[in-house]
Amino acid sequence: MRYFEDIQIGDEQSFGKYSITEEEIIDFGKKFDPQPFHTDKEKAKTSAIGTLIASGWHTCAIFMRLFVDEYLDGGNGMPSPGVDNISWLKPVKPGDTLSVRVTVSSIRRSKSKPNRGIIKNFCEVINQNHETVLTMYTNGFVPVKNPVNITK
Amino acid sequence: MRYFEDIQIGDEQSFGKYSITEEEIIDFGKKFDPQPFHTDKEKAKTSAIGTLIASGWHTCAIFMRLFVDEYLDGGNGMPSPGVDNISWLKPVKPGDTLSVRVTVSSIRRSKSKPNRGIIKNFCEVINQNHETVLTMYTNGFVPVKNPVNITK
Repeated sequence: MRYFEDIQIGDEQSFGKYSITEEEIIDFGKKFDPQPFHTDKEKAKTSAIGTLIASGWHTCAIFMRLFVDEYLDGGNGMPSPGVDNISWLKPVKPGDTLSVRVTVSSIRRSKSKPNRGIIKNFCEVINQNHETVLTMYTNGFVPVKNPVNITK
Repeated sequence: MRYFEDIQIGDEQSFGKYSITEEEIIDFGKKFDPQPFHTDKEKAKTSAIGTLIASGWHTCAIFMRLFVDEYLDGGNGMPSPGVDNISWLKPVKPGDTLSVRVTVSSIRRSKSKPNRGIIKNFCEVINQNHETVLTMYTNGFVPVKNPVNITK
């Protein structure tokens, strides 16, 4: 469990390895984002990108899986209030291997709930060619270890 | 197909009906957001919300499905560059029925690519009790019908 007291602005962590398959891209696309460039290999050839690409929401979901597994260690029990400035910078293609880098952008104590901190992380999803395919700022809460003694 | 010339700031459209099941919430959670309040009915009882809730990314994905089906009419061939200010305002629970309201927030001609417009939509996901569970601003492109004659 990661606590408010242990976190500093600028803290950076890189983790995760997720290889995305064509089958998975098409499956997610058919379920949630049925645009031809996410669901149909042939039709995708005549699209703007010229090939099958993952739904941007699929990339977000893969980010979340890696974030929960490797950063939140299964979760800290506090759902996120939201996310800012998602940029889908480069297409994610079948066979790509994605990893994540998280940098603490801001952290402060909650005024209304003294047992939690409010954290903003700058999150990047990076492919096997070291290209950043997605950036966003996630907002979240972290538990405070010692709500009484805290000085930060 | 929706063209740049047909769109005005403030245009509003409501559509869609998506009922979310417990099975689906758990399935998405196990795949992409394995925090106990998304994956385990029993453990969710002792969580902050006190019940199983959908992953926020699942709500985004359901929004996208309704948006593609009913607003984009299967897609316009132009992947989105990103999304701003996602706020997960209320939990989405098993049995909820979600619909979408989209309001054009801004629209302008692309300077670099005269055959497209750049549109920002304020998007809301609303449950069966008329509560807004998610808001965000999506960024997208729309094709220009007459790139030469345009006056807007």
